[in-house]
Amino acid sequence: MTIYDWHTGPYPARVRIALGELRLQSQVRFVSIDLWKGEHKTPAFLAKNYSGTLPVLELDDGTLIAECTAITQYLDALNGDHLLTGMTPLEQGVIHMMSKRAEIELLDAISVYFHHATPGLGPDVEIYQNAEWGLRQRDKAVRGMRYFDSVLRQRPFIAGHAFSMADIAVIGGLIFAELVGLPVPAECEALRAWYARMQQRPSVRNRITMSPPSKAAT
Amino acid sequence: MTIYDWHTGPYPARVRIALGELRLQSQVRFVSIDLWKGEHKTPAFLAKNYSGTLPVLELDDGTLIAECTAITQYLDALNGDHLLTGMTPLEQGVIHMMSKRAEIELLDAISVYFHHATPGLGPDVEIYQNAEWGLRQRDKAVRGMRYFDSVLRQRPFIAGHAFSMADIAVIGGLIFAELVGLPVPAECEALRAWYARMQQRPSVRNRITMSPPSKAAT
Ligand SMILES: N[C@@H](CCC(=O)N[C@@H](CS)C(=O)NCC(=O)O)C(=O)O
Ligand SMILES: N[C@@H](CCC(=O)N[C@@H](CS)C(=O)NCC(=O)O)C(=O)O
Repeated sequence: MTIYDWHTGPYPARVRIALGELRLQSQVRFVSIDLWKGEHKTPAFLAKNYSGTLPVLELDDGTLIAECTAITQYLDALNGDHLLTGMTPLEQGVIHMMSKRAEIELLDAISVYFHHATPGLGPDVEIYQNAEWGLRQRDKAVRGMRYFDSVLRQRPFIAGHAFSMADIAVIGGLIFAELVGLPVPAECEALRAWYARMQQRPSVRNRITMSPPSKAAT
Repeated sequence: MTIYDWHTGPYPARVRIALGELRLQSQVRFVSIDLWKGEHKTPAFLAKNYSGTLPVLELDDGTLIAECTAITQYLDALNGDHLLTGMTPLEQGVIHMMSKRAEIELLDAISVYFHHATPGLGPDVEIYQNAEWGLRQRDKAVRGMRYFDSVLRQRPFIAGHAFSMADIAVIGGLIFAELVGLPVPAECEALRAWYARMQQRPSVRNRITMSPPSKAAT
């Protein structure tokens, strides 16, 4: 399997963490797509993922799977233990809901803030910006942090009693928040304590060194 | 099970179609949340779904599952035949990717257009609008139609050889497009032919009469 990603990207981090949790790292080859050079917007890369985002998983038969949730679902099903996406219908439903909510309220909101209300990936890549929308999304993300804090005051993990894909999505959100300099409010104590716990997990700690940056190859 | 929805809403349609495909209609009670009155933004409803969107599934034990993808995943797992979300890791991965892509490139883009660059649900509900962003998203959705047309030139269904949750997501997108008066370009012949085929499915044809509008109860 090949994964097209960028070693410090917050969405790619989600798949790197999933690989670590599932102990599948050794089955994967990483190919760097340099976000800062806009390599994810070239025709060659857009042919791999219409949406022009990282990460993308390419199977040995050429099948392409984009979208963190879809890649995680694939890897987890491959592993067979349902460690990340749930065993029962209820677990699956709640995990998918909370992952999606982490995208809507945190990750995607921070992404829009980054690309629209900060210099983002620089003027060559950010051809159109809507700063007003970007700032709104930043505020939404901060509200999202307070929401996830309220969730973690009631249970140890984002989707309930066990670590899952939903925790990975929120971790991705907080990685992105750090990158753009958006602090978690001090009063979000449960979220901060959970994040400190998450950073002890080998999958989270070792996600970048899992694959050092290499030359792009698309 | 209770479903909070609005009978003509395009996202609620996705769950109604899923219920029809899985023949689970009779197990569900529908409760109307009137979008046009902003009932999805009341504190009572926000306590059910932080994101303030329809549909939401409530189980008999009080568990709440929001997000169409998560609800579909739950219902499909309940049914046990994996009709909509795939059996093999590969099917699951591709179906989740294509569903998400239908949201990003079509459904969510049309939603932003509707809420930001048209009167949307009216001045009482649409408290903030960003028309420029809305128009951009409209253009993105039209490009999305061309993309899905290209997909359907190569295979009979959105995620491959069988009907799935990904088809339902694109159907939801085209239902939304019709509602907002955004036509599918004439040259998207494969998409149009597929949509005509989809409208023959009982689950799609009968989705609204599945439950006539009833009084709200939150
Ligand atoms: N919905 C996608 C989002 C991925 C995403 O936005 N990735 C970032 C890299 S960290 C990216 O490619 N950004 C470039 C862009 O949005 O144009 C997923 O879940 O995989
Ligand atoms: N991500 C949600 C989106 C649902 C959604 O946007 N539903 C519409 C009703 S058709 C809604 O509630 N819109 C109100 C709003 O966006 O504020 C899902 O997949 O369920």
